[in-house]
Amino acid sequence: MTEAPGRSGAIGSMGELLVEFICTEKDGHNRQPSTYAGPYASGAPGIFIDQAARVGARTIFSGAVGDDAFGHVLVDRFTSVGVSEALVLVVAGVPTGSAFVSYNSDGSRDFVFNIAHSAAAHLPVGEAAVAAFASFGLDAFHISGSTLGDPVMAAAALGICLALRERGVAISFDPNVRKELLVDPSYMETVRALLGIATFVLPSAEDATVLFPGEPFEMFSRRFHDAGARYVVLKRGDAGCIGSLAGGPVEEFEAHKVGVVDPTGAGDCFCATFVALIAQGFAFREALRFANAAGALAVGKTGPMEGNSSLAEIEAFLGERR
Amino acid sequence: MTEAPGRSGAIGSMGELLVEFICTEKDGHNRQPSTYAGPYASGAPGIFIDQAARVGARTIFSGAVGDDAFGHVLVDRFTSVGVSEALVLVVAGVPTGSAFVSYNSDGSRDFVFNIAHSAAAHLPVGEAAVAAFASFGLDAFHISGSTLGDPVMAAAALGICLALRERGVAISFDPNVRKELLVDPSYMETVRALLGIATFVLPSAEDATVLFPGEPFEMFSRRFHDAGARYVVLKRGDAGCIGSLAGGPVEEFEAHKVGVVDPTGAGDCFCATFVALIAQGFAFREALRFANAAGALAVGKTGPMEGNSSLAEIEAFLGERR
Repeated sequence: MTEAPGRSGAIGSMGELLVEFICTEKDGHNRQPSTYAGPYASGAPGIFIDQAARVGARTIFSGAVGDDAFGHVLVDRFTSVGVSEALVLVVAGVPTGSAFVSYNSDGSRDFVFNIAHSAAAHLPVGEAAVAAFASFGLDAFHISGSTLGDPVMAAAALGICLALRERGVAISFDPNVRKELLVDPSYMETVRALLGIATFVLPSAEDATVLFPGEPFEMFSRRFHDAGARYVVLKRGDAGCIGSLAGGPVEEFEAHKVGVVDPTGAGDCFCATFVALIAQGFAFREALRFANAAGALAVGKTGPMEGNSSLAEIEAFLGERR
Repeated sequence: MTEAPGRSGAIGSMGELLVEFICTEKDGHNRQPSTYAGPYASGAPGIFIDQAARVGARTIFSGAVGDDAFGHVLVDRFTSVGVSEALVLVVAGVPTGSAFVSYNSDGSRDFVFNIAHSAAAHLPVGEAAVAAFASFGLDAFHISGSTLGDPVMAAAALGICLALRERGVAISFDPNVRKELLVDPSYMETVRALLGIATFVLPSAEDATVLFPGEPFEMFSRRFHDAGARYVVLKRGDAGCIGSLAGGPVEEFEAHKVGVVDPTGAGDCFCATFVALIAQGFAFREALRFANAAGALAVGKTGPMEGNSSLAEIEAFLGERR
């Protein structure tokens, strides 16, 4: 597929809804009493849809929370930014998903996740879910690889994407690869299936290293364009980004020089800004430039989606930098 | 049963192993980003067995943790105080249980629990578990009512207690009633069954209000002594404690005047000190006096079992107060 997505700017996503707690001290590895900031609304697909809403897209999300205070954190967040929660389930008696992150001095991170045994894993399946998404008039539908770690969740995500793709919805995929799962053939099969149907292919530099080893951007982007992708963008963190439009130019932006307070969510924020602006009719280069700025803004605040920003905030940031 | 427990001082317990996070700000109701202290080793039966070990008992615990960093917090704690973890399971792929507590200005507390869908619910059952406990040479075995909220966990706890009781182990029971469960007939049946076989009946004032409404201590303690309990102790928080020995005296202690930093766990600490000292041959009045002091020490530190104390620490505290 090489047609551009429609222009109404309606974006959907699905996946794990989590609250996140961030250790405020380094090197504790989540193994000793310390201080944590949280509960922050989180989960890569949740961060994505929050940002898509902030930059002006109509948005809908499907996922699930428990009937506890942490579930309210997520629902409150969606309500406050205008994400439709028509497809957000509240699962009685099952805890809301959670993630605890502890940073180390060497830049690595230790996590404790509760996803598979939490409400987060209760993803929609079947024709009813597809119909509900389709009736929203979606231009694009986004999946983060973070959702694919559990086989049942991966199957649900792929099933919805295949059905929506058939109905003409552009699929957006951020591989967001978990290296420890690369040895799992079923995980890699799902990653490859989504890469194969995606209109938006949005890997990070880490993703590219493990998924396309030895291939420079020009090589793997051409492969994806040949297979039908319209947009291939490589997020390179503090080295900026490079993107290509099928049959069009390659554009490259340097990273903005900003202080990094909390990098979590910056990639999701980048993807959401890019996809939501394309869906709203922004030119390729402009969408990429705004996404690059939104990613820089995202790392400046503690909390996975606390650094998400509106179009006006991104414009102000870019204006200051001119 | 009115015989005193043996004198080797071996204590067992079982139940939910949790890590606890404590909100450092009031009135957030776990519904908004704030600051939390944790992960602290917790769970009422875990607090109990930690304190029993600290005051010199040989101790064994049965419960389960996940194969994550939070599981290490609990296992590390048991290792450091010498609780045998021979019966602590590590359940792969299931998260360690957790509790989040947020205090309110009016003294109430809001909780988010993950117990039933966590490793904490994987309690031992069957003859093998009974045999393993029995081979430890137990004098007393303790159950906290906190373990009885889930029907499967309640059945496991009652089953082990009935079997151990038959083998001559004294049962200790802290009703630790959850008021919202009083309407559940199966929950109340388990509470009554444990009250019926307990050698140590150790309610709090709140427990007594809901379980023995209108009955003064003298009345319900006589009922339990008539039914076979050897020790009945009422924990009255900042009003001290009162206890009675079957066929013996009633003893009463005022609470020590201390600053309350974190009341969680004080009741469990009190119970553990009392049961462990009785099992080690302390006289009734002395055990009660030490338990009363240990409870006072427990409220002075943040963290559910961080205020637990050794016999030497309790003696020093009592010495300072003489």
